[in-house]
Amino acid sequence: MTILSYSPRDGRVLGEVRESARVDLALAVVRAAEAAQPVADVAPAERQRWLAAIADALDANQEALAELADGETALGMPRLLGEVGRAAEQLRFYGRVAADGGFLGAAVDEASATTPRLVRINRPLGPVAVFGASNFPFAFGVLGNDTGSAIAAGCPVVAKAHPAHPLTCRRLAQIAAEALAGAGAPIGVFSMVAGLEAGVELVKAEEIRAVGFTGSQSGGLALWRLANEREVVIPVFAEMGTVNPVVLTPRGVRHIDEVAKGFVGSFTLGAGQFCSKPGLLFAPAGHGAAESVATALHRAAPEPTMLTQAIASHLGTGVHDLVRAGAKVVGAVTGPGRGWSADAAVLSAPIQALRRGSRLLEECFGPVAIVVEYAHEKELHDALGELQGSLAGSVFGDGAGDPEAARAVTVLAGQVGRVTLGDWPTGVAFAWAQQHGGPWPATSRPSSTSVGAAALDRFVRPVTFQSMPDNVLPAVAREAVAAQNPWGVPRRVNGVLTGP
Amino acid sequence: MTILSYSPRDGRVLGEVRESARVDLALAVVRAAEAAQPVADVAPAERQRWLAAIADALDANQEALAELADGETALGMPRLLGEVGRAAEQLRFYGRVAADGGFLGAAVDEASATTPRLVRINRPLGPVAVFGASNFPFAFGVLGNDTGSAIAAGCPVVAKAHPAHPLTCRRLAQIAAEALAGAGAPIGVFSMVAGLEAGVELVKAEEIRAVGFTGSQSGGLALWRLANEREVVIPVFAEMGTVNPVVLTPRGVRHIDEVAKGFVGSFTLGAGQFCSKPGLLFAPAGHGAAESVATALHRAAPEPTMLTQAIASHLGTGVHDLVRAGAKVVGAVTGPGRGWSADAAVLSAPIQALRRGSRLLEECFGPVAIVVEYAHEKELHDALGELQGSLAGSVFGDGAGDPEAARAVTVLAGQVGRVTLGDWPTGVAFAWAQQHGGPWPATSRPSSTSVGAAALDRFVRPVTFQSMPDNVLPAVAREAVAAQNPWGVPRRVNGVLTGP
Repeated sequence: MTILSYSPRDGRVLGEVRESARVDLALAVVRAAEAAQPVADVAPAERQRWLAAIADALDANQEALAELADGETALGMPRLLGEVGRAAEQLRFYGRVAADGGFLGAAVDEASATTPRLVRINRPLGPVAVFGASNFPFAFGVLGNDTGSAIAAGCPVVAKAHPAHPLTCRRLAQIAAEALAGAGAPIGVFSMVAGLEAGVELVKAEEIRAVGFTGSQSGGLALWRLANEREVVIPVFAEMGTVNPVVLTPRGVRHIDEVAKGFVGSFTLGAGQFCSKPGLLFAPAGHGAAESVATALHRAAPEPTMLTQAIASHLGTGVHDLVRAGAKVVGAVTGPGRGWSADAAVLSAPIQALRRGSRLLEECFGPVAIVVEYAHEKELHDALGELQGSLAGSVFGDGAGDPEAARAVTVLAGQVGRVTLGDWPTGVAFAWAQQHGGPWPATSRPSSTSVGAAALDRFVRPVTFQSMPDNVLPAVAREAVAAQNPWGVPRRVNGVLTGP
Repeated sequence: MTILSYSPRDGRVLGEVRESARVDLALAVVRAAEAAQPVADVAPAERQRWLAAIADALDANQEALAELADGETALGMPRLLGEVGRAAEQLRFYGRVAADGGFLGAAVDEASATTPRLVRINRPLGPVAVFGASNFPFAFGVLGNDTGSAIAAGCPVVAKAHPAHPLTCRRLAQIAAEALAGAGAPIGVFSMVAGLEAGVELVKAEEIRAVGFTGSQSGGLALWRLANEREVVIPVFAEMGTVNPVVLTPRGVRHIDEVAKGFVGSFTLGAGQFCSKPGLLFAPAGHGAAESVATALHRAAPEPTMLTQAIASHLGTGVHDLVRAGAKVVGAVTGPGRGWSADAAVLSAPIQALRRGSRLLEECFGPVAIVVEYAHEKELHDALGELQGSLAGSVFGDGAGDPEAARAVTVLAGQVGRVTLGDWPTGVAFAWAQQHGGPWPATSRPSSTSVGAAALDRFVRPVTFQSMPDNVLPAVAREAVAAQNPWGVPRRVNGVLTGP
């Protein structure tokens, strides 16, 4: 069986990738399991070197990779060139986070008259299955945040190729394999499988200890259920699509044209195929916000081409469903009309329609958004309370002294993983203080993040060693907590946080 | 409906506690939800003060509480007096961990030319349901580790009374309510419900955001399934019973008598009703280890009385099941014969019988343990590989230079949450470097701990604030990351870890 690669611009077949047979999957999983101990045992700085080798190889292949992906995704060369560069920088970042050693959570309580010596250290879980996203072939793909943070944390990765860009995935896997071999990393640190069945078997494989997923709610929850049915249940870190509300405050209304333009830019970016796409704008009543957005949409005149035929077709159905749920189309522009073309649209809906269980509160993946008017602050806050958990929420007010903006920030903080002020939610910096996650069902593990330094924390588990002299401690624990601190790891010593 | 309190020593009814009606549960949950914001908003040091007030009240009631619990549990006054003291110290410890502020995970990345300012802070999840253990009415009870760490992290708690000691639970709830009121804490920080149905409804209640559980695998997994069926799935931190293997190395054999005595002391402690009870001793073949343990058991002559009639009855069935699974009884001593009396027993089993799925690999709650002989190190390590995840594993060798001991430590570290060397696993210090958890099915979240500083981490979720000046940040984030650091919170600033 093969997976066909299509050009979204005209539907043409670009090539094909063979689906993994059972034996391919078994080999990948066994190699990952064999690599688990050596990968866990090396100093984090060694894994940083491996990740840097992949990053350098991505940079060296930037142009060719972007071209290959552009053919399969129609996301455009500027965006894809930038994304390859970002993916490389991400890998370097996760390498730095590994080398920092904070993720080890090292702690020592020296023995007292009544308590034993305790040494606590985070240990890698073992082989991780990574299901990358359709919409970011590089930054959230088979060599994206999940893979980078898992390897940084000390876990081998078996990634599943995404059917929306199988040729790109295959090329990325080749690049990673060569780079890792050149860097002297053990075989099995990274491998890739392709095909739906291989993905299912991967989650069921005994050797797999965790799953990273970026994609739709249905896909993420299916994997989560599958993992919960295993004899040994494993964590699934699924980052799923959400509606990502935006609040415009009464004082912010004077910036309505700018906000409308920015909103259109954000919800049509990448043909609206961002998990952090702002899907719902709450605007004060009586200022024609929906019409302003419709005007901005017509001016922007995007020509959306979707990643896959299925996404394009779901988008059409999705807009119908929104209308059936009480929304109406205020403005729309038609797509290029060939291939996986789609129309961009702005809808409006009465705030009373935003009730628990309504289709209006679910993601509509693509260049579509809804404007809702609120009469007063209480109505706004009550409506926000009806929303599902989201990855991000945004507030647009009138400067730092806008009290409604501050209050909206506080309300949104209870419902999302990231709150932005005067910034659109699309665009997620990889940084120490980033959180890309959110309350259920935005993520299956709201305490986790798939972007940023804390992404490593998903793939470790603490172990405490009691009454153990240093020479009996496993090497990683010994190095991390030894008095001379050769790895320069931040530690808690008798409860006191100590830098390197 | 009422819950009867029994004396395990003679089966007499000591009193009764009314089961919570639906309205009682609803009131507890609503009050907890109302308290969530104020509890989250205060400085961590304020919550430390509340916890200290409960701790002081426990100390003031130490004698009366121990007597009440001794009547219901037969655990004995010395143990229970000590446990009340420990429970008080635990609450003070979690208060100190809260005040330290490390659990907030505060991080700031200042804006750069290409990236926005990001502020990341952990926020309390909201109301937590706590299901305490039967075997530790104080340290793991309604005012135990789960409640202490949840309140410390900023979450109100609704605890469920344990039917093994309902009168003690009721008294503890009264003490907590008075102490919290005296300390000026909001109503709803802590409340308690009683009854099986109230427990089920508690996990299903929309306002509840997490569950802490200590108890049996069947109980823990039932709550986990229930939580997974909610519309908004919530995390269940279930700490469940496990077999907790012990390894005696060939060099350690010369200490066999001492080890046998210690093993008996540990597996019969508290009538074997410890989740960290060592259930399986691996000893080198040909040294009569099982017989040594049997001799030590007869010498120790424990007179076990179990906590409940059900536990006593399950223990009898459990020993039969072990025999059916290939074990044989090597030595036994009979219990006092009245009330919930039980026999203590040591069994032996051939190492080949330790196969995945065998009853021998599951916890048998009570004063019962199995001795297994291994011929060589590979056989030992292979057998350890068949075990389920455990809370703890222990190694007894011959000093720090014993290579088999070091290797057994490394193997066990892959399978348990805590490895002890020359220490018995019973007894779990509450400390910064503690880990009381373990791979599935020891815990439903192997990355979490129910004892130690990291226990707070279970009850928070990170939120990142993007492009936000300090004055718009919610108070907790503002205080935690402000340049003057008024709370003295450790932080990451542009990736650099900075102490208070």
